[in-house]
Amino acid sequence: MTRTAFFISDGTGITAESLGRSLLAQFENVEIRMLTKPYIDDLEKAQALVDIIDAAAVRDGERPIIIDTIVDQRIRDVIRKASGFKVDIFSTFLKPLEQELDTHSSYSVGRTHSIGSDDVYMDRIHSVHFALDNDDGARTHQYAEADIILVGVSRCGKTPTSLYLALQFGIRAANYPLTEDDQDEDGFLKMPKALAPYRSKLFGLTIDARRLAAIRHERRPNSRYSSMDQCLQEVEQAESLYRSMHIPYLDTTRSSVEEISTRMIAETGLKRRFSPH
Amino acid sequence: MTRTAFFISDGTGITAESLGRSLLAQFENVEIRMLTKPYIDDLEKAQALVDIIDAAAVRDGERPIIIDTIVDQRIRDVIRKASGFKVDIFSTFLKPLEQELDTHSSYSVGRTHSIGSDDVYMDRIHSVHFALDNDDGARTHQYAEADIILVGVSRCGKTPTSLYLALQFGIRAANYPLTEDDQDEDGFLKMPKALAPYRSKLFGLTIDARRLAAIRHERRPNSRYSSMDQCLQEVEQAESLYRSMHIPYLDTTRSSVEEISTRMIAETGLKRRFSPH
Repeated sequence: MTRTAFFISDGTGITAESLGRSLLAQFENVEIRMLTKPYIDDLEKAQALVDIIDAAAVRDGERPIIIDTIVDQRIRDVIRKASGFKVDIFSTFLKPLEQELDTHSSYSVGRTHSIGSDDVYMDRIHSVHFALDNDDGARTHQYAEADIILVGVSRCGKTPTSLYLALQFGIRAANYPLTEDDQDEDGFLKMPKALAPYRSKLFGLTIDARRLAAIRHERRPNSRYSSMDQCLQEVEQAESLYRSMHIPYLDTTRSSVEEISTRMIAETGLKRRFSPH
Repeated sequence: MTRTAFFISDGTGITAESLGRSLLAQFENVEIRMLTKPYIDDLEKAQALVDIIDAAAVRDGERPIIIDTIVDQRIRDVIRKASGFKVDIFSTFLKPLEQELDTHSSYSVGRTHSIGSDDVYMDRIHSVHFALDNDDGARTHQYAEADIILVGVSRCGKTPTSLYLALQFGIRAANYPLTEDDQDEDGFLKMPKALAPYRSKLFGLTIDARRLAAIRHERRPNSRYSSMDQCLQEVEQAESLYRSMHIPYLDTTRSSVEEISTRMIAETGLKRRFSPH
């Protein structure tokens, strides 16, 4: 039996969806179809959504779960008419918070937090372009400006992580690939010259060799680049460099970009320039 | 008087922080210092955090607000000892949800939703590299593979939006700059050749000319590129192209990348390959 859940918001829907998915993830044995409905910001859209919810109720034979972060009371009144089970975040928590903070909440349209401010925008766009300009060792002369420099073998997750740090937190992340070009005469990876002056900014990524081979195989099937031997050797060399140079590092094998980025911030104390959504 | 709020999680902290900021944004007249504490996943870290919370209580002269999404009961028991005001999302909502869904929740460590699965990772990395390869009109031969092609004048927000769509939703977004190269003999923007076969995938971005001039000024101060005249003219031409070719478009002037991306998805019905965090 499938149930439907609606995450409803007058804004992006990110908060409602994030909370909704966290809550519903606790019910593994129930099949739940999850729908995010952002920008429900007038009565007409609200009424149209009520019709959709009611139709889902009829189809499923069970009322849908409704998780919303709408602030406008008139829109809430419309949504309330839908035949659903409501998880009402704002009503539930705002009253006790008003008591605790001994003040009234504004609780009106458009009052949800926004990162649309000019400063945030400039920080963000600057950080994104910084990540792009300094991707994959393309340039090294801006490393003095970097907040962090990610190092690791090709396709271990450096680029997505740099971009996520830039977009979500305004962090200026460069990244530099560890390759055979930086081996010493005995075939061991040495500290790349471009990185030596910035040791305190370095953060390593590593990955299970089998997983790396699979990822590289998508890009260049059946190549030396994607062979198990090559991947094993590169990963071993990278990890031994991290250890000998005391570079902190994380394993990306079973982690999402969100997890890698937030762990990195937690471990290094890196300062975020702004907060996500 | 400043209050402190802690967003606490055994994972990334994204859900707790997102909800916490939404709730506290309703209290404009209270100054609140917000701290995110992710990866509180053992008793030792929990106890250390309790000490930090208690210290904040002493310093502020008021107990901190605690908003958490920790699932492990033993860790919760430790955190509960902190002298704070608890907004307890899981306890509050899971019981009623259990009743509604007529089943028990798993409610145990590591059960929060994750996007760390292999498929998601591959989709994500593919989409990020797609966005990078197809940034700023660099290539046009992969447009058949694109889910959406963003168009707009230089620095109107195409690149951050393409990357956000890739990272958060696995959407393959190319972007193409509208420049004077695509003007006809009368000096009007015409549909760029590379885009003509993909009209149904086009989505325009526009921006207030004054804002554009400010953004471009950061990049190339006092240039023709960043002059008010140039910006005005480019923006007018772009908008008139959108209208004449029936290309849907959004104004990025007062919007965050989250807002632009989620609105775009809502308006086009673009399919997300996975869900954020």
